[in-house]
Amino acid sequence: MLEFLKSHVSVRKYTDEPVTEEQLHDLIEAAQGAASSHFVQAYSIVDVTDADKRDKLAELSKNPVQIKGAARALVFCADLKRLDYAAKKHGKTVEAGTAENFMVAVIDTALFSQNFVVAAESKGYGICYIGGVRNNPGLISELLNLPEHVIPLFGLTFGVPAERNEVKPRLPVQAVLHTNEYDEAKYETILDEYDDVIRTYYASRSTNNKSAGWTEGMADYLSQPRRAYMLDFVQRKGFLKK
Amino acid sequence: MLEFLKSHVSVRKYTDEPVTEEQLHDLIEAAQGAASSHFVQAYSIVDVTDADKRDKLAELSKNPVQIKGAARALVFCADLKRLDYAAKKHGKTVEAGTAENFMVAVIDTALFSQNFVVAAESKGYGICYIGGVRNNPGLISELLNLPEHVIPLFGLTFGVPAERNEVKPRLPVQAVLHTNEYDEAKYETILDEYDDVIRTYYASRSTNNKSAGWTEGMADYLSQPRRAYMLDFVQRKGFLKK
Repeated sequence: MLEFLKSHVSVRKYTDEPVTEEQLHDLIEAAQGAASSHFVQAYSIVDVTDADKRDKLAELSKNPVQIKGAARALVFCADLKRLDYAAKKHGKTVEAGTAENFMVAVIDTALFSQNFVVAAESKGYGICYIGGVRNNPGLISELLNLPEHVIPLFGLTFGVPAERNEVKPRLPVQAVLHTNEYDEAKYETILDEYDDVIRTYYASRSTNNKSAGWTEGMADYLSQPRRAYMLDFVQRKGFLKK
Repeated sequence: MLEFLKSHVSVRKYTDEPVTEEQLHDLIEAAQGAASSHFVQAYSIVDVTDADKRDKLAELSKNPVQIKGAARALVFCADLKRLDYAAKKHGKTVEAGTAENFMVAVIDTALFSQNFVVAAESKGYGICYIGGVRNNPGLISELLNLPEHVIPLFGLTFGVPAERNEVKPRLPVQAVLHTNEYDEAKYETILDEYDDVIRTYYASRSTNNKSAGWTEGMADYLSQPRRAYMLDFVQRKGFLKK
């Protein structure tokens, strides 16, 4: 199992083999085995099967290749709406606006999705997370009729792989593992070493060859303001108000 | 694999069998196989091995049983600090304050942790997520010396199970799966049916027997303001400012 988990790669090209309703159902059921904070199960999936909606989702996500070509294109949503209904049955109201409950919903959805990925990959499917649904979360919410207290967190495409990338080397374990207290001092040397690993990987991989380390890519990517509308969007959906 | 994922339960009591450094290392390495948004790998683990710190963590999390009795007690942190170092190497600064980058870090950490859980359970360990680290995130940050741009998201205890609970029935798949658009109308009937399932489960389980449905528990839990300090805490750590 450990080797299997380490073999994950994003799969962006799929064969035209379909995934049946029953197969999808079984994967979701397995995904639901994930732990959930206080058992709130604060997630939903929207399965986009309609061709026009699929095209529109691809366009809004700025992600045409995976979304149009996949057997299934799912949108994973952090969801407190179902819990609104649950509370209403007992004359109560969900406190959706706190940072705590936002975090609960986001974490719940991510645990669920990662279990989904493990289940899907165990059946031979390839998957790709699509952060691009956050490029136009408002319009995607309209497209999928997402109510207040539901936000699209990420998409997930999957199907039978037509092509697989090589596994990218991760940070060394000692970069992410601290004992008893957080130790920043170690980053100075570890990151230089990791840059060498990534530079070698990028130089040697069979496609999309380049000469760059990890820190360089991170510096470029994270120093630019990206999706600066996100707080406003999330607040309009009733989250993160306090 | 699907049956294995469905068999997850929180394990709160462990034998005194230890988990070696090497075993922990292997599980983390497998966990790192998870996808990461733009490959930022925005997570860290603090492994709390020191007895005094472990006691203090248990107290601050209001969670003495699992934390004191587990072979390992880990704190999973959303972490943009390592990326600060990466950016600084290239004269740049990470935009940590946006809701987008907060979500990226939280999601990355949760995907990583769920892979960790799958890896650990595949080796026969039992685990329990500890949301209780968010009971005193400020003091826990001091205890573990967490710098700016690092927050404790949840703990995870694990070890060889001494006792296992029964699997709790999840929401039916049709409650979490929507096709093409979000359909709230279905909750009216689905939630009543699910309440019956949960009521039967609670009435029949071998320990901690009770008479309650799911919606009732959710209404009680989510209508109370909980961890109302969270937004302030997260902002003090440099997140969610815009």
